[in-house]
Amino acid sequence: MQLALRQAALGQNSATPNPCVGCVLVKDGQVVGAGFSQPAGAGVVQGAPGAHAEVMALSMAGDLARGATAYVTLEPCSHHGRTPPCADALLKAGVVRVVAALTDPNPLVAGQGLARLAAAGVEVSSGVLHAAALEHHKGFISRMVRSRPWLTVKMGASLDGRTALANGQSQWITGPAARSDVQKLRARSCAMLTGIGTVLADDPQLTVREFVIDRQPLRVVVDSQLRTPVSAKLFNQAGVLIVGAQDDELKRRALEAAGAEVLILADAHGRVDLAALLNELGLRGCNQVTVEAGGVLVGALFQAGLVDEMLLYQAPVMIGDTAKGIATLDLSDLKHKLQAKVLERRLFGDDLRLTLRFTDAGEFYVK
Amino acid sequence: MQLALRQAALGQNSATPNPCVGCVLVKDGQVVGAGFSQPAGAGVVQGAPGAHAEVMALSMAGDLARGATAYVTLEPCSHHGRTPPCADALLKAGVVRVVAALTDPNPLVAGQGLARLAAAGVEVSSGVLHAAALEHHKGFISRMVRSRPWLTVKMGASLDGRTALANGQSQWITGPAARSDVQKLRARSCAMLTGIGTVLADDPQLTVREFVIDRQPLRVVVDSQLRTPVSAKLFNQAGVLIVGAQDDELKRRALEAAGAEVLILADAHGRVDLAALLNELGLRGCNQVTVEAGGVLVGALFQAGLVDEMLLYQAPVMIGDTAKGIATLDLSDLKHKLQAKVLERRLFGDDLRLTLRFTDAGEFYVK
Repeated sequence: MQLALRQAALGQNSATPNPCVGCVLVKDGQVVGAGFSQPAGAGVVQGAPGAHAEVMALSMAGDLARGATAYVTLEPCSHHGRTPPCADALLKAGVVRVVAALTDPNPLVAGQGLARLAAAGVEVSSGVLHAAALEHHKGFISRMVRSRPWLTVKMGASLDGRTALANGQSQWITGPAARSDVQKLRARSCAMLTGIGTVLADDPQLTVREFVIDRQPLRVVVDSQLRTPVSAKLFNQAGVLIVGAQDDELKRRALEAAGAEVLILADAHGRVDLAALLNELGLRGCNQVTVEAGGVLVGALFQAGLVDEMLLYQAPVMIGDTAKGIATLDLSDLKHKLQAKVLERRLFGDDLRLTLRFTDAGEFYVK
Repeated sequence: MQLALRQAALGQNSATPNPCVGCVLVKDGQVVGAGFSQPAGAGVVQGAPGAHAEVMALSMAGDLARGATAYVTLEPCSHHGRTPPCADALLKAGVVRVVAALTDPNPLVAGQGLARLAAAGVEVSSGVLHAAALEHHKGFISRMVRSRPWLTVKMGASLDGRTALANGQSQWITGPAARSDVQKLRARSCAMLTGIGTVLADDPQLTVREFVIDRQPLRVVVDSQLRTPVSAKLFNQAGVLIVGAQDDELKRRALEAAGAEVLILADAHGRVDLAALLNELGLRGCNQVTVEAGGVLVGALFQAGLVDEMLLYQAPVMIGDTAKGIATLDLSDLKHKLQAKVLERRLFGDDLRLTLRFTDAGEFYVK
C-alpha cells in the first residue's frame, strides 16, 4: 500500500478531476504491475486519456495479474463513467484479492466496488493505511462529501505576521526555496483563488512556471465590482474566472473579450458569496483550491469557515505593525481565536513552512 | 570546560552583577574541585558573599589543588575588587595550569590575569569552547564592552503576529508551558523592562513566582509622563524604577511614596532616551535586561538598534489584523526589514519558541 500511495503521488498534478489513485499488483511476493490515474485531457498520457490506476497496473502486469493481489488507495469503481468499471477489469484479469485503503467517499456508492468483487469470490478488505490515503485523497473526498474543494491558503509572511508593506510592496519577504515550493503547490491545485486587491497590487499570473505541467490551474478572482484590468497578467494564459457581486455589462464584456469567464454570485450583503463560489468550483471538478490573496479575502474565507489548511512560509524577519497582515478577522474575545493543528514544520532555505490545519478530513469522511 | 560551563549555568540566576563564571579543577584525570560565582548579596550563599568560582572550586579541592589544572569560563581576575584576585588564589593553591574559555572582556584588563599566572610559571591558554562561553557570558560582556546590558525581547504571539486584541485582551494567547519558560527567563534577568501601555492594560508584576529565587529582577517602566498608577501590582515588591521624559513633582513624589525610584531621561524629542536608559542600567550592574512590553516600546527599541535578541513564543492560533502587533516599525522599503538569525526552534507545549538574534555577540567581543 505504501507503494500504491507512492504511485498515487505521481498523478497528483494531473489526474484532476479524477482522484489520483495508485494501484500495485503483487503476485508471489513480487510486484507485477503498478499504475496511477492518468490525465483526462491533454498532456503526456500513458494509456487511454483518463485511464484509471487499476487499468494501468493490469496493463503492465498482463498475464501475471492472474492470481495476484491488488493494492489500491481507493476502492475500485463499479460504475460506467468515462471508462468501464475497474472492478470488472480486476475480475476479468483474474485478480484474487483486493486491498483498498479507503472505500469510495461518495456515500451513495461507497462499498459497491468491493461488494461486486466479493460477490464474484474475490477476497476484499479495506482500511489499510487509511490515514495516509485520507491525507492524499482529501481534495477528492471533500468534493464528494462536502460538495466543495479542499481549501488551502498559502501565505508568505514575516515573524510578526506581515505580508506586505503598507505601500503594497511584498516582493520579496520569503526566499527562493519557499517560492519554489509554492510552484509545486500551484501544480497540485485545480484552481488558484485570489482577490481583486492582490490583482491590482501585485498583478500575479498564478501559474506554474518553474517546471513543465500538463495543465495550468484555473485562476479565479473574487472581484465584486469587476475591476480586474484587461491588461492583467492573469490573461497571459487561458483559464480565468472572474467572480463578481454586481453585474456590469460593459465591464463583463471587456473581461470576456480578454479571455475571462465572468460569473456573478452575490450574497445577501452584496458581496461575492464565497461558499457558493466554492460549491461552483466543486461542480467544475476542482478537488484542491489554493488561495494566494491578501488579508481581506483570507479573513472573509476564515470567517465563512471555508479554510481547511494554511501553508504559512515564515521568513526570519521583522517588518512592523504598519505593514499588512495575514487575515482580517474581528474578534471580540480571545476565546474565538482560530485554533490550528500544526501538522508539520519544515525549513525551506531560511524560511519555515508551517502546515496548519483548521479542518480534520477525518471529520467529514466517516467510513 | 563543558563541566565548567555547567557549573557556570548554576549561578546564572544569582551571580549578577558579577559574571556567573564556572571553574573545575582537574588533577590526574579526576575532578577535585568545582564551583560557580556566588550571589553578592542576600540569598542562599555557599562560601563568602560574592565568592568567585575559582575560590569555591579551590575550597572544595583543598590540598588536592596542588598540581591541578583549572578550567575557567572566564579569565581569572587579577585585581582587588570585593574579593582578592583569583589569579593569586590559584597561585597560592599550587595550580600548575589554567585554561580559560574567554579572556576578560574589559579591553583595559584583558589578558592581565593570565599574564600574571604565566609570569609565575603557570601554563596558561585560552579560547577553549570560546563560542559556548561567549553565549553564556554575553550579558556581562555586553556590559563591559558596550556599556549596556544584553537586551532580550520576550513576546507571546499568534501565527499572524498578534499579541493582544484591539480591546487589550491578551490573556492567554500562549499556553502554560511557554509561560513557565518565561519565569525562567525572568529569573535570569537583572532587570525587566516594560512600557506604560502594558502597565495600564495588563498591570503585570514582572516577578518570578513559580520558584524560589535569591533576588527579583529590577522592574523598569518607560513612562514619559509618569502615569504609572500607585496601585500598580509592580509595587507589591520593592525594586521599581520609573523612567519619565518630563518631570512632574507631584506625580514623582506619589510614585516615590509608593516605593519607586523615578528617573528623568529625555531625548531631544521629549521621549524617554532608551539608549541612555540602557547605559544607566549597565552602570547599575545589569548584564541581562528582558523586555515584556507592547509594540510601541518594542518598535522604538528596534528602531534605536538596541534589541539583541527576541524570544518569540508562537501559539498555533490566528487572531486577525485588527489585533495588536509585535512591533511598531515604519518601513518605507522591504530592504530595511529587520533580519534575524534563528538560533533555535523549540516546542513548549503547543507553542513554538523561536530564539532570534539581531546581534552577534562575537561582533562586539573581539579577543
